[in-house]
Amino acid sequence: MSMNSIGRILVLTTFGESHGPAIGCVLDGCPPGIEISPEEFRHDLDRRATGKSRHTSQRHEEDAVEILSGVFEGKTTGAPIALLIRNTDARSKDYANIAQQFRPGHADYTYWQKYGIRDPRGGGRSSARETTMRVAAAVIAKKWLLQKYGIQVRGYVAQVGDFKPKAFDWNAVEDNPFFWPCAEQVAELEQFMDAVRKSGDSVGARLNVVADNVPAGWGEPIYGKLDAELASAMMSINAVKGVEIGAGFESVTQKGSEHRDLMTPEGFLGNNAGGILGGISSGQAVTCSVAFKPTSSLRLPGTSVDVNGSPIEVVTTGRHDPCVGLRATPICEAMMALVLMDQALRHRAQCGDVGEISPKL
Amino acid sequence: MSMNSIGRILVLTTFGESHGPAIGCVLDGCPPGIEISPEEFRHDLDRRATGKSRHTSQRHEEDAVEILSGVFEGKTTGAPIALLIRNTDARSKDYANIAQQFRPGHADYTYWQKYGIRDPRGGGRSSARETTMRVAAAVIAKKWLLQKYGIQVRGYVAQVGDFKPKAFDWNAVEDNPFFWPCAEQVAELEQFMDAVRKSGDSVGARLNVVADNVPAGWGEPIYGKLDAELASAMMSINAVKGVEIGAGFESVTQKGSEHRDLMTPEGFLGNNAGGILGGISSGQAVTCSVAFKPTSSLRLPGTSVDVNGSPIEVVTTGRHDPCVGLRATPICEAMMALVLMDQALRHRAQCGDVGEISPKL
Amino acid sequence: MSMNSIGRILVLTTFGESHGPAIGCVLDGCPPGIEISPEEFRHDLDRRATGKSRHTSQRHEEDAVEILSGVFEGKTTGAPIALLIRNTDARSKDYANIAQQFRPGHADYTYWQKYGIRDPRGGGRSSARETTMRVAAAVIAKKWLLQKYGIQVRGYVAQVGDFKPKAFDWNAVEDNPFFWPCAEQVAELEQFMDAVRKSGDSVGARLNVVADNVPAGWGEPIYGKLDAELASAMMSINAVKGVEIGAGFESVTQKGSEHRDLMTPEGFLGNNAGGILGGISSGQAVTCSVAFKPTSSLRLPGTSVDVNGSPIEVVTTGRHDPCVGLRATPICEAMMALVLMDQALRHRAQCGDVGEISPKL
Amino acid sequence: MSMNSIGRILVLTTFGESHGPAIGCVLDGCPPGIEISPEEFRHDLDRRATGKSRHTSQRHEEDAVEILSGVFEGKTTGAPIALLIRNTDARSKDYANIAQQFRPGHADYTYWQKYGIRDPRGGGRSSARETTMRVAAAVIAKKWLLQKYGIQVRGYVAQVGDFKPKAFDWNAVEDNPFFWPCAEQVAELEQFMDAVRKSGDSVGARLNVVADNVPAGWGEPIYGKLDAELASAMMSINAVKGVEIGAGFESVTQKGSEHRDLMTPEGFLGNNAGGILGGISSGQAVTCSVAFKPTSSLRLPGTSVDVNGSPIEVVTTGRHDPCVGLRATPICEAMMALVLMDQALRHRAQCGDVGEISPKL
Repeated sequence: MSMNSIGRILVLTTFGESHGPAIGCVLDGCPPGIEISPEEFRHDLDRRATGKSRHTSQRHEEDAVEILSGVFEGKTTGAPIALLIRNTDARSKDYANIAQQFRPGHADYTYWQKYGIRDPRGGGRSSARETTMRVAAAVIAKKWLLQKYGIQVRGYVAQVGDFKPKAFDWNAVEDNPFFWPCAEQVAELEQFMDAVRKSGDSVGARLNVVADNVPAGWGEPIYGKLDAELASAMMSINAVKGVEIGAGFESVTQKGSEHRDLMTPEGFLGNNAGGILGGISSGQAVTCSVAFKPTSSLRLPGTSVDVNGSPIEVVTTGRHDPCVGLRATPICEAMMALVLMDQALRHRAQCGDVGEISPKL
Repeated sequence: MSMNSIGRILVLTTFGESHGPAIGCVLDGCPPGIEISPEEFRHDLDRRATGKSRHTSQRHEEDAVEILSGVFEGKTTGAPIALLIRNTDARSKDYANIAQQFRPGHADYTYWQKYGIRDPRGGGRSSARETTMRVAAAVIAKKWLLQKYGIQVRGYVAQVGDFKPKAFDWNAVEDNPFFWPCAEQVAELEQFMDAVRKSGDSVGARLNVVADNVPAGWGEPIYGKLDAELASAMMSINAVKGVEIGAGFESVTQKGSEHRDLMTPEGFLGNNAGGILGGISSGQAVTCSVAFKPTSSLRLPGTSVDVNGSPIEVVTTGRHDPCVGLRATPICEAMMALVLMDQALRHRAQCGDVGEISPKL
Repeated sequence: MSMNSIGRILVLTTFGESHGPAIGCVLDGCPPGIEISPEEFRHDLDRRATGKSRHTSQRHEEDAVEILSGVFEGKTTGAPIALLIRNTDARSKDYANIAQQFRPGHADYTYWQKYGIRDPRGGGRSSARETTMRVAAAVIAKKWLLQKYGIQVRGYVAQVGDFKPKAFDWNAVEDNPFFWPCAEQVAELEQFMDAVRKSGDSVGARLNVVADNVPAGWGEPIYGKLDAELASAMMSINAVKGVEIGAGFESVTQKGSEHRDLMTPEGFLGNNAGGILGGISSGQAVTCSVAFKPTSSLRLPGTSVDVNGSPIEVVTTGRHDPCVGLRATPICEAMMALVLMDQALRHRAQCGDVGEISPKL
Repeated sequence: MSMNSIGRILVLTTFGESHGPAIGCVLDGCPPGIEISPEEFRHDLDRRATGKSRHTSQRHEEDAVEILSGVFEGKTTGAPIALLIRNTDARSKDYANIAQQFRPGHADYTYWQKYGIRDPRGGGRSSARETTMRVAAAVIAKKWLLQKYGIQVRGYVAQVGDFKPKAFDWNAVEDNPFFWPCAEQVAELEQFMDAVRKSGDSVGARLNVVADNVPAGWGEPIYGKLDAELASAMMSINAVKGVEIGAGFESVTQKGSEHRDLMTPEGFLGNNAGGILGGISSGQAVTCSVAFKPTSSLRLPGTSVDVNGSPIEVVTTGRHDPCVGLRATPICEAMMALVLMDQALRHRAQCGDVGEISPKL
């Protein structure tokens, strides 16, 4: 498998740099007969888009998706689906000054060390712009999961710095630019974010993603476990430093009698497992929590080195994203949807003959 | 790629059930010329072994590794290396009573739902016994990493329930059965564990793994990132519910000015990144933290259902492991070593012509 | 994917050397619930076995298969199935003299060049003994294909040197040690082979493999075409130098009006395509023809070089197989069965929702 | 791995249909630092282009390659290289009449059976237009192989119907539209092809591909053998029905004493092996021969069925290619180059520490 691909049956390959001619992807292995139109990508791309509010980076891209292949008369054909988005707002000049510099906390230095060459424009391949294509491809996955299984993959921001929700309401999440689940806190959060932005600094965030209605039986032991693939998929997102399934790190201080989700004929008595046991879905909601680091591009100066090894001072003067986690909700959803759909297809490959298994909880 | 395999160039495939005739593995893609003898597996297998102390499950296995292939006159040949361990202490009768039951918090129910059939003896394929082969295979990986790059992969237990180290000393870790980094706390920890065991309950644990001397440049963007593969590898271990790289979930509350590891000609001024930027190693120590849930096999009764969907009460009467995390240190080390060696081989596949890159930090 | 594995969903990994402790395999991704017993491997292993007649190499192995995992109470569980055969008749002393020599026409020199080390005993990993495990694993694949789809995978020897069948009868094939389809020629062929053996030389062979009742729709364009995977699988067999699908090289001199298999409501009017169009099965018999070179281990002396580059003369004094193709029929069948079963599973992964498609020819 | 991808380290993924908006590819895993410009694709695309002469299909495409990613300031960066070609001459109306028909000898029927839906325009995904991207991607592979190892990958047409070369001269091959190695026969071949075209029928062809200067040691036993991967790569090309390595099917009638290439300190005394022993390159020229069937799109009518299963008569009225093999030379070269480069990268992954091995023949 290639390094820019994810999945085993449903395989997503992405390409493109932040300031190159275009970004794009190839989604291979998609079942035939799924209706899809270019307009359907709009919603999630807007949810992810930079420039959506003053709280995220001010880059304006149209992000119009062109379907290059794999769709005939509005339906997928089983052939690879190529999606393309032209980069229309690539102001490379903003980045000319850092061609010789390694920004602290970024991939500049490590790409240089790995490849001996790098595209410095906007972070090149390491830019979060790449995640646009994950979101686009996952529109198809989300649709298939919903239509075929009633699976809904939803995320929200569960923490920004020290700021935590006081209440939880799915309905609130999509009504504010922060994907915040508590409506009454939005004004306060807005002030909080304004303060961060004005300080020139940034903060981290925690995002939760939940998939409801996942059937029991998805996931492949031992090295293709559903939780292992979710962990990998989430960790592959820029700025992610931690992943939890279910109770996550709270499991460390839990007792076994507290953690284990007892079972009854009426169902499970808890979901510390996050809907996954032994790497296989249990029929409960699959839950995942993700830690995003604060962006390292700050208006506050920081020391670094240049390509000659000399000490320099780095200051971000262009776009500045005080909390990269704020627009990552659709990205996390996308990764969960892609993993789930791939696992669904793999499950029926091996176990397609296994009929209805009782008991269902 | 198969579901019981991990890695792309260095590929580990494991097989075997807890109470079947044997467990084993095939390690493919290993460079030729590495000296290896059956005795070299002893050390890490002993570190992992059940029955090591009263604080871990009382199963006694000799775990003698037989090398079936891939080694000629004491050296690897480049052919697949098959390792085999016979199951000598498999008391299946202990488990006969649970053939019709689903133990809460275990994979019994999900395997049943996925496959419509399951081997109930000791958890079958979902038993942690499978991890023995990871540890065995990683003996080769650890040796290669150390000899070729001076890389040392070491782990320790960083928390048991609420119990945390007061001090840290690598030298202490291997001198107690808990892999505990603070020698003066060992007696207290022993009492703590005794109390847990007597209570019939269990506790979770946090394990840290560190790899020193990893060269800059390992890891493959976008979907083969070093941190993403570590996350998947760790999450594939039984009972793991969370994975962190570097600062992990602490990143959520950090400011960017605090998190970003500033760079100077003398090196990085911190390691919140955990040695990985943009999915590629930076030359700093690679650090990973892993959450183990408390085992669900308790002497405390718990409700569940049987294969007919009827309510039952489950009590573990056989072996009882009050903290599965305690013997997981060599397993976590194994997964990191396997991931690192695979990435090392992959790096030189694509970038073998990239010479010495300066500056080195 | 590892280099000693084949398949994507149904993945076979083999290990072991000709004169090491054992050979074995891991068959992963197998559907659960297939009944299998150790005795079922006997038939095809006997068909392949050396020592079956004086016309094949005189090595006697019991080749008793031990099932190490993946089967519980006589049924596959979905876990990886490990099979093991101990090497009981490994007379390494026969081969001691060639440790410093490169046999012409063998892999001795190329393994040495690749790995810088080699196991010279009986060809080590490059020995055809490895194919035993393909035959063993394919017993499961053949059974599944037959039970679920009525697919029969059968092969026969279609040519030995210049010797060609005068008639064709499937019933004759299994009634002689040559897998020869014309009963009345068997005595003559026996004399032909005796003459070759006495001459100290060897001859090549052509084998045909046919799979009946393959449903239309299997095969994955573009790079997982059914014919492409068959070609790879056959070419991976020791001594194979050519592969044809359907009319094969006869297509070169055919006219399009002759080659194209016209279609009618009653079916195809020919099968030059070999049951595959555009890489996908058409519902006709899948046919494949394979060229085996004459073995290079001869009692006739030949020039070569030793590990120091000095000229030497090589003579095979031990076992001598005058036509390696004669026992390759079950091996070719095995490769076709493994490819077909893997493709069947992959097909239902992506296209499991595609219902009955008409028209069927 | 996805079904529209080939390779393990150097991974080519292609997308696009004959008459969709565009065709394209992503070449992943390419070493950094290779100089490449859009103009360099021109030569091989012209060699492959339809419309080159009256002897191949009269479709005129500009086939201008746009580099979308992976190249910065004229050099590869190690990021995935996406190439795009817009379809500018897609006259779908030509094909409207066959939307309900299955052309005999084409993939129409099998795509329909597999997916339950198909893009009928020009064969959709099954069109040979897809091979354009293989040729484009291989331009990079050919360049790398030549610059780094001096490897030259060249092909020629070795037979058209019954027409065979009387002499062989590499210099002649590129001087005529038939890739024919005998200059004095070109006029005669032209007449032969004119006659075929006028007859409304078509003929098959044999193509040979040779790679000189391949180092010893490339190829991965057992299931990643160099010859096995070449066989798969060639068989994945549209219209290919057979593949030979070295002596190929002539091996069937050869004696072992004739086939085995004896070795001397001065080198091999023959190349029946086609440069590959045990799946690993020997240092000799790698040779491959490929059978192309005659195209099934004829001006001669043929029977078939429509999507309702009713009998129909099919006549090709549009473009008609009397010998598809004639423009396949660069395609076969491309597949060999891609396989070789991938194997080269994989070889240094596992065996990068194996130094100079003597003796070299």
